[in-house]
Amino acid sequence: MNNLEMSDGAKPLLNAVVKHIRENVDPISDEFFAINDTKENRWSHTERQMELLEGAKQKARESGLWNFFLPNAETGEGLSNLDYAYIAAELGKNPLASETLNCSAPDTGNMEVLERIGTEEQKEKWLKPLLAGEIRSAFAMTEPDVASSDAKNISTSAVLENGEWVINGEKYYISGAGDPRCKIMIVMVKTSPDAEPFRQQSQILVPMDTPGVEILGPMHVFGHDDAPHGHMHIKFTNVRVPESNMLWGEGRGFEISQVRLGPGRIHHCMRSIGQAEKALDLMIERGLSRVAFGKKIVDLGKNMETISRAKIEIESMRLLVLKAAKAMDVLGNKEARIWVSMIKAKVPEQVCDIIDQAMQVHGATGISQWSPLSGMYAQQRTLRYADGPDEVHHHVIARNEVKTYQESNARQAIAKSHQPERGSSGFMG
Amino acid sequence: MNNLEMSDGAKPLLNAVVKHIRENVDPISDEFFAINDTKENRWSHTERQMELLEGAKQKARESGLWNFFLPNAETGEGLSNLDYAYIAAELGKNPLASETLNCSAPDTGNMEVLERIGTEEQKEKWLKPLLAGEIRSAFAMTEPDVASSDAKNISTSAVLENGEWVINGEKYYISGAGDPRCKIMIVMVKTSPDAEPFRQQSQILVPMDTPGVEILGPMHVFGHDDAPHGHMHIKFTNVRVPESNMLWGEGRGFEISQVRLGPGRIHHCMRSIGQAEKALDLMIERGLSRVAFGKKIVDLGKNMETISRAKIEIESMRLLVLKAAKAMDVLGNKEARIWVSMIKAKVPEQVCDIIDQAMQVHGATGISQWSPLSGMYAQQRTLRYADGPDEVHHHVIARNEVKTYQESNARQAIAKSHQPERGSSGFMG
Amino acid sequence: MNNLEMSDGAKPLLNAVVKHIRENVDPISDEFFAINDTKENRWSHTERQMELLEGAKQKARESGLWNFFLPNAETGEGLSNLDYAYIAAELGKNPLASETLNCSAPDTGNMEVLERIGTEEQKEKWLKPLLAGEIRSAFAMTEPDVASSDAKNISTSAVLENGEWVINGEKYYISGAGDPRCKIMIVMVKTSPDAEPFRQQSQILVPMDTPGVEILGPMHVFGHDDAPHGHMHIKFTNVRVPESNMLWGEGRGFEISQVRLGPGRIHHCMRSIGQAEKALDLMIERGLSRVAFGKKIVDLGKNMETISRAKIEIESMRLLVLKAAKAMDVLGNKEARIWVSMIKAKVPEQVCDIIDQAMQVHGATGISQWSPLSGMYAQQRTLRYADGPDEVHHHVIARNEVKTYQESNARQAIAKSHQPERGSSGFMG
Amino acid sequence: MNNLEMSDGAKPLLNAVVKHIRENVDPISDEFFAINDTKENRWSHTERQMELLEGAKQKARESGLWNFFLPNAETGEGLSNLDYAYIAAELGKNPLASETLNCSAPDTGNMEVLERIGTEEQKEKWLKPLLAGEIRSAFAMTEPDVASSDAKNISTSAVLENGEWVINGEKYYISGAGDPRCKIMIVMVKTSPDAEPFRQQSQILVPMDTPGVEILGPMHVFGHDDAPHGHMHIKFTNVRVPESNMLWGEGRGFEISQVRLGPGRIHHCMRSIGQAEKALDLMIERGLSRVAFGKKIVDLGKNMETISRAKIEIESMRLLVLKAAKAMDVLGNKEARIWVSMIKAKVPEQVCDIIDQAMQVHGATGISQWSPLSGMYAQQRTLRYADGPDEVHHHVIARNEVKTYQESNARQAIAKSHQPERGSSGFMG
Repeated sequence: MNNLEMSDGAKPLLNAVVKHIRENVDPISDEFFAINDTKENRWSHTERQMELLEGAKQKARESGLWNFFLPNAETGEGLSNLDYAYIAAELGKNPLASETLNCSAPDTGNMEVLERIGTEEQKEKWLKPLLAGEIRSAFAMTEPDVASSDAKNISTSAVLENGEWVINGEKYYISGAGDPRCKIMIVMVKTSPDAEPFRQQSQILVPMDTPGVEILGPMHVFGHDDAPHGHMHIKFTNVRVPESNMLWGEGRGFEISQVRLGPGRIHHCMRSIGQAEKALDLMIERGLSRVAFGKKIVDLGKNMETISRAKIEIESMRLLVLKAAKAMDVLGNKEARIWVSMIKAKVPEQVCDIIDQAMQVHGATGISQWSPLSGMYAQQRTLRYADGPDEVHHHVIARNEVKTYQESNARQAIAKSHQPERGSSGFMG
Repeated sequence: MNNLEMSDGAKPLLNAVVKHIRENVDPISDEFFAINDTKENRWSHTERQMELLEGAKQKARESGLWNFFLPNAETGEGLSNLDYAYIAAELGKNPLASETLNCSAPDTGNMEVLERIGTEEQKEKWLKPLLAGEIRSAFAMTEPDVASSDAKNISTSAVLENGEWVINGEKYYISGAGDPRCKIMIVMVKTSPDAEPFRQQSQILVPMDTPGVEILGPMHVFGHDDAPHGHMHIKFTNVRVPESNMLWGEGRGFEISQVRLGPGRIHHCMRSIGQAEKALDLMIERGLSRVAFGKKIVDLGKNMETISRAKIEIESMRLLVLKAAKAMDVLGNKEARIWVSMIKAKVPEQVCDIIDQAMQVHGATGISQWSPLSGMYAQQRTLRYADGPDEVHHHVIARNEVKTYQESNARQAIAKSHQPERGSSGFMG
Repeated sequence: MNNLEMSDGAKPLLNAVVKHIRENVDPISDEFFAINDTKENRWSHTERQMELLEGAKQKARESGLWNFFLPNAETGEGLSNLDYAYIAAELGKNPLASETLNCSAPDTGNMEVLERIGTEEQKEKWLKPLLAGEIRSAFAMTEPDVASSDAKNISTSAVLENGEWVINGEKYYISGAGDPRCKIMIVMVKTSPDAEPFRQQSQILVPMDTPGVEILGPMHVFGHDDAPHGHMHIKFTNVRVPESNMLWGEGRGFEISQVRLGPGRIHHCMRSIGQAEKALDLMIERGLSRVAFGKKIVDLGKNMETISRAKIEIESMRLLVLKAAKAMDVLGNKEARIWVSMIKAKVPEQVCDIIDQAMQVHGATGISQWSPLSGMYAQQRTLRYADGPDEVHHHVIARNEVKTYQESNARQAIAKSHQPERGSSGFMG
Repeated sequence: MNNLEMSDGAKPLLNAVVKHIRENVDPISDEFFAINDTKENRWSHTERQMELLEGAKQKARESGLWNFFLPNAETGEGLSNLDYAYIAAELGKNPLASETLNCSAPDTGNMEVLERIGTEEQKEKWLKPLLAGEIRSAFAMTEPDVASSDAKNISTSAVLENGEWVINGEKYYISGAGDPRCKIMIVMVKTSPDAEPFRQQSQILVPMDTPGVEILGPMHVFGHDDAPHGHMHIKFTNVRVPESNMLWGEGRGFEISQVRLGPGRIHHCMRSIGQAEKALDLMIERGLSRVAFGKKIVDLGKNMETISRAKIEIESMRLLVLKAAKAMDVLGNKEARIWVSMIKAKVPEQVCDIIDQAMQVHGATGISQWSPLSGMYAQQRTLRYADGPDEVHHHVIARNEVKTYQESNARQAIAKSHQPERGSSGFMG
């Protein structure tokens, strides 16, 4: 469980990914993002942007890097989560990298789910174009009207009528649904209000162009709409899809969530750590390049300690994420869920702090458009809600820890034996 | 020094201000801000917006509330800082309120400076229309190319040539300079590079329409440009103003800063506390109105303790700000500067934390455009830089505390006497 | 409510107390405490110690300072809580001072209770010698076997048999019960297990020498027994006291607690702030007197910011404690209880932090017997439990804040109105 | 570098150590420590204590576990630091365990130093009886009169006179020097005040019974003297030792420190983590066994989140310590020093917090002699100074991080490239 080394077998892949990013992605990034400043329609890529992007995708296909994230459907073989974690750290360094390798969120999770539990028909219709990088997809879970942190609250309803599921409700923060290339959503719905609590929800495929699907607008993140990707607010009014669009069967919504959430969180956390490293480098760069009160800023006040604490936490977080990935490999998604909750609860909160400190060292520039820091902060801040707020993960971890304690005679024996007798002078440490 | 009660004499004014906000400002606010969503030119108010605003200003004039912030030029009489602090708390509750009473930042500071140290000509030309609410103004201090936290670094130069000051340099985060009604700037410039460090800077009046003044664009705050107010980036290229535009005399830039900064910080901090109170109310409202895992959110986990800690800090901050205001009244701006640094270093940081916690209780809505919280956060976050970053204020406070200790025989005697003799068994607490 | 100035009438008393400490207490302190290092019986004062102490007490009596804390029984007149707070700050500077003025804990609380609700017989027998400084007393509340933070849990029983209350149970952390001069305890007991929850407890007078009262030993605080004062562990086995020893009547235990707790907490918190000030001075003294890596320690790393933050919090806490005292004067103990909970929850926790930082600046000496810091820390750490743990006070504050919000239409209206309409672009701050 | 698994070869040893503790140490611990409460001379073990201890030592010798910590002198083979870290975690669970295996601090460090750089004569005279467990030893570094955090300050002098080193000065916190079995000290002295700063200090062997070595008394830790081990204050007055007692040569004091500090810190940190785990178990046990306000304490307020955060940090710290041990194995002590500083700066501070939270859950019992928590706290608190205060380690880490950044063109390139052009709309995250 503590061998957190990348496997030798995966190292050539890592090297190839690094080479791809350096040769095919880094060189197009400046031009790609500069177009965002001037283009007329913010809600789609321009032709030139698509040309750049598709060019890099084609090169990834040619290098055999396309879809490397996906295990072999027949043999089950593929990258371990641990190996993937190392690659994810590299992907996090360029915001375009994932898409050129067809492993952007939420597509990877959606493809994984379809691959594992989709019917042949579902795979043919949606998995195939997703794997080909021809379309994109979304995952619709969170609702504006209930505390979705408790997924049992989800209330968008799906009722079976004449062989069709009829869906009504509202979802928001549907990331990626702003992009016109997004063609399909997996939607969490309540199908079985009378079943036991964890069997009431289902997941169902809804094409974006189904009548009754109405995009009300983009949700903002600290005022940003993240166009053209977008975190959309969507209303479902009598949306009808065929009965066969149900995934895995009615009432299995929670089970499907177990399939998808783990690796995505590893990916997210590794990217977050990459952001923390970038923030630390920006902090040092700024601290070295400005002078106040006769000293480099880096040498003023608590700044050196801030750098040290950031470094320590970055290394701690990296090891913990690798351990969670390893736990998924060794124990399976279900048993490893505590480890995944641990990184989910620790990493984004701590990374927000590190970015905030980097902002402070920058002075007013730190919160301006001349620095990526405020955008990085906004993005990391959302991760403290995404896939469950920190608080839910803390509760899961604590409940498990209490239960583990209760089941361990050895731990109880020690805890009880180390309560000195009343009347003793105790104090033995 | 510890009588922090509002004076009886000022209470009628407070009541009148509260009445004005309730009757003249609150009723127009929704319409005023709704126009922002649809108007074509984001960088000015619409005719309807001006109509609403001028209507409220007129009512303030009729009620005798106009310019209440300003002490009588001849008698020096006027509101104490302490009384003003109570009124500022009310002003903070509606973002339009200050402007309807002609006491918006940075106009108040600018008017105060002109009133106290301006020449008759300067008063006639700029103070009069400012007092009349016909124009607005800006204050240009921070520079993008140096660490302006150390004001001695400021490098925009002004050189006297043929009876004109010729100004060259760049300033940024010039708040209010985006509004077309802004007609005049007070600019901090380096006039005397060979003088001793605190006598090298001067403050000078620069009309916005002077040739060579070029607005390069708005600086963003967490991605927001705050149009039409704007935090502008301005370039000065051979900008020429008459010699008489100099304020108070060459090399007195730092002295003038002492005049302006105190009351503005009281005002800002009181507004910040108002924001913390609003965040606390939003946190409670949300916590009461949503249910997860069978409980109201307010009753989950650490939320009650979060509310308690927010309440305690709000009350602590309020008392500290009142004390700082009182110190200014009793000791004068200069002696009270440590108290002002204390509130400047404590309040915005703590208010950011409280708003962040309120966001977390809201779930994803907390960072979205459906809640004012992320905008409130962005605004408060900037205050950790404005008028000097937290770190500079902490240093000023600590240096003063160390000096005070060194000058106090009594404190030193106690500190030294409470070092038990070596060999004693000590431990007496 | 915000006039936190000491009354003019009380200033002469304050001056007299300061003079008494300087002239009569400070000069005897070194000799008094030095005796502790060598004396044979740690559990009583030596003759010489008593001589020193009684000498100072006599001088206080002669100066008319004796029992100044107590309001006039007939007129109800006396020191306000606010005035007392200022005096308490001075008392906190010398650990002997309170006793020389007959206002040590828990005697003051006990005398206050007896004065207000005692019968003539109870007053004659116990209040009189307490007021004369001839005996000392204790207050027995906390129990080792239940979570006493919830006072309803208290289970030491008192049953009426033949005109006598028969008491059985265990109490611990009975401060002062180690001193042979302690002759009487007020004991919280459960008399009425069938009454409604807040009417089950009573308070009763138990002389220390009653048969069945057994001192099992001293409780330690970070390994210290605080002899001869002592925090004793006491067992009650069929302890019989006359029916008339009941205070105020059966089932009124909680009511009596309201009488006693407020002023004592003001006193404690003011003393805690005094400890924080002492810690800050020790931190500065050490930081100025040692050099490492070519600089004074005070100028290394984050030390200056640590000093600044300590200073800011000390001033914030002082104002909050004064406000709580004022609230007690204006609103009465019951209404002011939220303010008292606020200082109780904030002050000891923050003072512990400040002392801990002072220790860190001292290096190993900071935790040794050569510095008072570790003893100060231990003492302050206990205050996070005494009179209810921090957590209970936070809960009381939060519950009240939520209730206040629910009862305020104005606050609710604002909180709800500041939720921008869905679909708006929000972000107005 | 990231394979943090224990080696297969070391697993039998780990199992044997666990078995030894369970069978030979746990059974004698209660009796051993109970004797401390009653024995007459606190400053030595009783005969019965020695009998118990020597019995367990003998069993360790018989099982071949004796001195397992020491690498083979000739082949250099032995336990890796990583393997030792796993064993240290087990040793930390019983305070007697280390001594029964002859691997107590500071003996292990002293033996290591003697083994690696001692002369034959030094080995014969001191290493041999240490390896045999017949005597114990001390390490004298810290001085009361200077800031020893900067080791260059050390001023105890050693001057060569007639073939003898004459030592004068004061040391304190000499752990283990209270035990009468302690026969030898390694003392850091200044021999070469005119050499360059890092070549002025030397380390020298001083037998405890040398004339002029005077134990002034025990230093306390939060009021505890930790008898009979003791943290002694020692004065050296014209202490004369033979020239051959010098270790490795004059001026090599800092070099020797590099040899000793690494593994000891791994050991200490692993033991600290063991203490955090124990504190977490005590917190859960208490939280489950008491009820207040109708709920188990564990379910009140923030307690579950506190448990979760403790768990997350324990796992993070464990991985970081294993990584530091691995770094020592792979990179050597010198290159790995940053990793060692990282654990030294993070672990004790965080473990103090966890123990403090466990205390708070316990109520007053938490700081009393009925719980080991306050003793555990005191012990961990000292580790924030031992072998350099946190602040020194943070500075070392930050300086290295800044230097690494300055030497990395790649990092600089990214940091600079991610500064968007002025004028761009930035915000891409």
